[in-house]
Amino acid sequence: MAKETKISMAVIRRLPKYHRYLGELLRKDIDRISSKELSERIGFTASQIRQDLNCFGDFGQQGYGYNVKDLYDQIGKILGLDKNYKTIIVGAGNIGQAVANYAKFESLGFHLQAIFDKNPKLIGIKIRDIEVKDVDCLDTYLKENPIDIGIICVPKEHAQMVADIMIKNGIKGIWNFAPTDLNAPDDVIVENVHLSESLMILSYRLNESELFKE
Amino acid sequence: MAKETKISMAVIRRLPKYHRYLGELLRKDIDRISSKELSERIGFTASQIRQDLNCFGDFGQQGYGYNVKDLYDQIGKILGLDKNYKTIIVGAGNIGQAVANYAKFESLGFHLQAIFDKNPKLIGIKIRDIEVKDVDCLDTYLKENPIDIGIICVPKEHAQMVADIMIKNGIKGIWNFAPTDLNAPDDVIVENVHLSESLMILSYRLNESELFKE
Repeated sequence: MAKETKISMAVIRRLPKYHRYLGELLRKDIDRISSKELSERIGFTASQIRQDLNCFGDFGQQGYGYNVKDLYDQIGKILGLDKNYKTIIVGAGNIGQAVANYAKFESLGFHLQAIFDKNPKLIGIKIRDIEVKDVDCLDTYLKENPIDIGIICVPKEHAQMVADIMIKNGIKGIWNFAPTDLNAPDDVIVENVHLSESLMILSYRLNESELFKE
Repeated sequence: MAKETKISMAVIRRLPKYHRYLGELLRKDIDRISSKELSERIGFTASQIRQDLNCFGDFGQQGYGYNVKDLYDQIGKILGLDKNYKTIIVGAGNIGQAVANYAKFESLGFHLQAIFDKNPKLIGIKIRDIEVKDVDCLDTYLKENPIDIGIICVPKEHAQMVADIMIKNGIKGIWNFAPTDLNAPDDVIVENVHLSESLMILSYRLNESELFKE
C-alpha cells in the first residue's frame, strides 16, 4: 500500500465493482481466480484488471491467479470498508427514508445516528427505530455528537445551508442526493448521487443512434 | 448534429451538468454567457467546455459567447429530453417509491404508467395516483402496453428475472437500482444507479490520504 502517485478516479470508480464480484465469488466458495476468468465475469479486460490492481500493490501470482478472499479483503481495506463511520441523514422524505432503510448501509460500516427534517408531519416518526428530529436542532446536535458523514436528502434550495452547518461542525464527508453542486472546502469530500443526471444519460443513450444519423 | 465519430462517455456524462447550469442561468434571466464565465460557474475549464460542445456542433460565437436559451435547448435535444418515454417501475419498496415520487421525473419526459410489486401489502396501494399491480401481471401488461423504459427497484436476486421479462417484451432502456449487473443484449441500454458503489467511493476518498502515507 505504498505507491506514491495519486490513483485516477477512473480506477477508483472500478474498485467497488471488483469488491462486489469478489464478494459473490466468495459466497460461491470460489477461493481463487485468474485475471482472465475474473475478466470474463466482470467485463473489464484481463490487462485492465492487472493494471488497476497494480496501482495498490502486488496482488496475484503468475500461474496461480488471485486469492479471492485476500483480494476481497484488500480491496475492502483500500475502500475503507474496515472503518466505521457515524452518519446522519438530513431530509426524511422519500429519498431520505430509502437511504435510511438501505440494507447494505450498516454492513459497509456506516452507522446511522440521527435523522432530521423540518416537516412537522415527519418530526417524531421512527425510521429504523430512529426518531426524526427537528432540523432546527441540527447545529446543536452536531456540536454534541461528532459525526463523520452527513447525508443530504433535502430539496436543492436547502442543500447548501444544510451542508454549511455540517461543514462548520467538522463533518468531512457529504453524500449528496440534492440535485445541486455544493460548495465545500477542499478537505471536505462530497460524493453526489444525481438521479436526474443518470436519467438524462439513459435518455441520451437511447437516442444516440438517431442523433448521429444523417 | 452530424459528426461521425462516437462521443466518449466522459463527454456525455458532463452534458447533464451543462444542462442543469444553463437551466439555472435561464431562471436568472441571463441570456448569454462566455465559455470563461460558464467555466467559473461549472468548474470545468473553458477549453474543456469548448471541446465538449464542439463534439455536437457549432455553438457559441467568437466575442459573443453562448446564447443560454439556445444552448440549453440544444443540449436538452442532444440528451433526448424533447422526447417522451413511457416508463414502469418494478419494485415498490423504498427506492421504488422514492423514484416514483421523484419530482423531476415527469418534467424530463418520463411518464410513469404503472408500478409493480410482489408484496401483497403493497399491491393495491396508490403511489402518485397509480395503483401498485401484482408483478405476476408484468408480462401480460407489457404485451398489451408498449413501454420504453423499465425501472428496476427490486432486490438483486430478482433483478435479472424482471429484466428478462422487460427485454422479452421489447423494452429498450432499463434504469437499474438493484446492486447487480444485468445481462442484456446490445440493443438494450442499461443505466445503473448503484448506491453502494457511490458510498464506497465516498469511503475511499475519506481514507485516501491515510492510504498513501508511509
